[in-house]
Amino acid sequence: MQRMTSSAIRDLLKYTLQPGMISFAGGMPAPELFPLERFREAANRVLAEPASGRSALQYGITEGFVPLREMIVRHAARYGLQAGLENVLITSGSQQALDLIGKLLIGRADRVLVEAPTYLGALQAFDAYEAEYLALPADEAGLAPEALAAALERRPKFMYLLPNFQNPSGATWSLARRQAAVGLAAAHGIPIVEDDPYGQLRYEGGHLPSLMRLDRAASGTNVLYLSTFSKTLAPGVRLGWIIGPAEVIARLVQLKQSTDLHTSGFVQQVIYEVARGGFLDEHIRQLREAYGTRRDVMLEALRTFLPPEATWTHPEGGLFLWLRLPDGLDCHGLLTAALEQQVAFVPGTAFFADRDAGRRFCRLNFSNAQPEQIWEGIRRLGRAVEAQMAAAASPVPEPA
Amino acid sequence: MQRMTSSAIRDLLKYTLQPGMISFAGGMPAPELFPLERFREAANRVLAEPASGRSALQYGITEGFVPLREMIVRHAARYGLQAGLENVLITSGSQQALDLIGKLLIGRADRVLVEAPTYLGALQAFDAYEAEYLALPADEAGLAPEALAAALERRPKFMYLLPNFQNPSGATWSLARRQAAVGLAAAHGIPIVEDDPYGQLRYEGGHLPSLMRLDRAASGTNVLYLSTFSKTLAPGVRLGWIIGPAEVIARLVQLKQSTDLHTSGFVQQVIYEVARGGFLDEHIRQLREAYGTRRDVMLEALRTFLPPEATWTHPEGGLFLWLRLPDGLDCHGLLTAALEQQVAFVPGTAFFADRDAGRRFCRLNFSNAQPEQIWEGIRRLGRAVEAQMAAAASPVPEPA
Repeated sequence: MQRMTSSAIRDLLKYTLQPGMISFAGGMPAPELFPLERFREAANRVLAEPASGRSALQYGITEGFVPLREMIVRHAARYGLQAGLENVLITSGSQQALDLIGKLLIGRADRVLVEAPTYLGALQAFDAYEAEYLALPADEAGLAPEALAAALERRPKFMYLLPNFQNPSGATWSLARRQAAVGLAAAHGIPIVEDDPYGQLRYEGGHLPSLMRLDRAASGTNVLYLSTFSKTLAPGVRLGWIIGPAEVIARLVQLKQSTDLHTSGFVQQVIYEVARGGFLDEHIRQLREAYGTRRDVMLEALRTFLPPEATWTHPEGGLFLWLRLPDGLDCHGLLTAALEQQVAFVPGTAFFADRDAGRRFCRLNFSNAQPEQIWEGIRRLGRAVEAQMAAAASPVPEPA
Repeated sequence: MQRMTSSAIRDLLKYTLQPGMISFAGGMPAPELFPLERFREAANRVLAEPASGRSALQYGITEGFVPLREMIVRHAARYGLQAGLENVLITSGSQQALDLIGKLLIGRADRVLVEAPTYLGALQAFDAYEAEYLALPADEAGLAPEALAAALERRPKFMYLLPNFQNPSGATWSLARRQAAVGLAAAHGIPIVEDDPYGQLRYEGGHLPSLMRLDRAASGTNVLYLSTFSKTLAPGVRLGWIIGPAEVIARLVQLKQSTDLHTSGFVQQVIYEVARGGFLDEHIRQLREAYGTRRDVMLEALRTFLPPEATWTHPEGGLFLWLRLPDGLDCHGLLTAALEQQVAFVPGTAFFADRDAGRRFCRLNFSNAQPEQIWEGIRRLGRAVEAQMAAAASPVPEPA
């Protein structure tokens, strides 16, 4: 696999730490919005009492801290999803959920059906188990049922789908396409891994039901649902979860036990104390407002500074939009030019099982930089795009 | 693999939570010795300052928090081990180190050379990659060089060794055996994975050099060294590390990135603040004193309450000793009888790649229970052993 290597991404992220650099590269939350004081109070509460402090620092059960799993069960119920404790496994971030699912489901040369483009970290997790891919081109409403039905005839081991504000494209699956995917999964007996890190971060439009909810409504057990506190509270704590059928969760628990015994109990108890009592909902309201503004600023800046030959998606939520470059431009060439202008993004090639399919695309994150930086960064990006277009139109003459 | 399943161990550990139960089963530190107040101050320090708080809650680098890795480098240097930052990877507990090493090194049906008995969690981690085992019977000074040399002719992929106060046996490798193993590894070009969770917890005798130090002294690069804060500070935070050649660490970093991105930065910064300024050394001195006393109480209680047909190891450190039952007794039968007496241990079969080799053995933990509980628990265990011996000597007559 010649995917964009982790070292290449790390090199890119190192660039983004240079003073003056404006980065749209990482998928990072806004650090100035982290609720530090709430975390401090929570850590104090956990550690001040011998009973909670000792249980936070001692070995714990692999499934995860019971009150936190109960909170996740209550939260799922608010979105129409009935689950019990036996349906929830706490993971060390969603990335570990992807790794455990790869470990459980992928045999050598098994095929995984993915959207094209899709989340880079999922490809990396599945690559480790020697997955092959059925990559289906997605549009702004997800995957078309006809293409999905045809691909399922080829018997992939499972489908990996991100229906809400997809990473990298920002696309959101329509209700009709969600229903079609769930119906096809049931008809073909092929499970869906539904990755939903951003579902709470919607800036316009109404909430759409998860694939898992639609599947359960039809008495199905075909969906594993993944989410995380990374985008709503803090990614650095590394805390995510899987909801699934009890017998699948039980097998994932066994795999997790041999992988890292359990996720930090200290972190689980602190996050529980941070989130409880309505704080998480209130904090998410603040994030929606701040990130919604940043998205709007980026969209307006793109309209202002990018040439008409470029196009981009209009995400209803999440952290990313997806820029399609004018004819003849290549995201790698543009990145070099953009870094000289002190603005960074991730080249589209990183998000395709078949890298070359991504050469015209750039992923732009709008959660990490502040509005005035976003405006200035897109101004610089526009300048880099125009310089690349000019260079493409008048190639350097051959030396005589 | 018909190893003792995780669910069987979980069931056992559930028993140990019953009121009145005295447990020698888990490998748990003494919770009353956790430095809760120091953790509380550390968490406050990390979260009170925006710079450190935001970096603790934001995504971090896969290799781990730099000041923590520098601390580990300084600590290694005190034990004669020269390492740089590029030689250290922070892991989500030592269990994750074992998983990543399995993922990197074990191909289908590759053989891993292990001591018999060995750490159950390592067998579980390697099982997930379909390892087979070359299991060599160990004595109280490790593996004999002749047996090791013969086994290396069969080309295992690597050796997994615990030279200090082994889990489960409590055995410590002699210096001569350490030197022999390192020489054989170099001669055969077969790497050693050295697991050292307990090395700091020595209650008698002098420190012996790690296999990695001996290998480096001979200019070798054959050893990956694993350790953890689980036994010296707190297991619930899930924090360990690997020291190894830079090029191996770089590959493990890539695997870790696809596995969980990085270990909780919040936990890493808190542990750094807890450990710094000499606190860790001071705390380890307290643990040595407390656990040394508990070991002595258990040894004295065994001499007092066990029949002369039973024998046991005399560990110089760590958390465990290893009980060999009288002729005709089976650890599973004894466990049933012991649980009725409200005392628990882990049956020896859990620690052998070939389960049946463990039927005469029991692992006894002496760190978790307090001295008076240890005394009473061994009294109960002695009663259970004697009852089993009487039953074995006079089988129930067939009904007429």
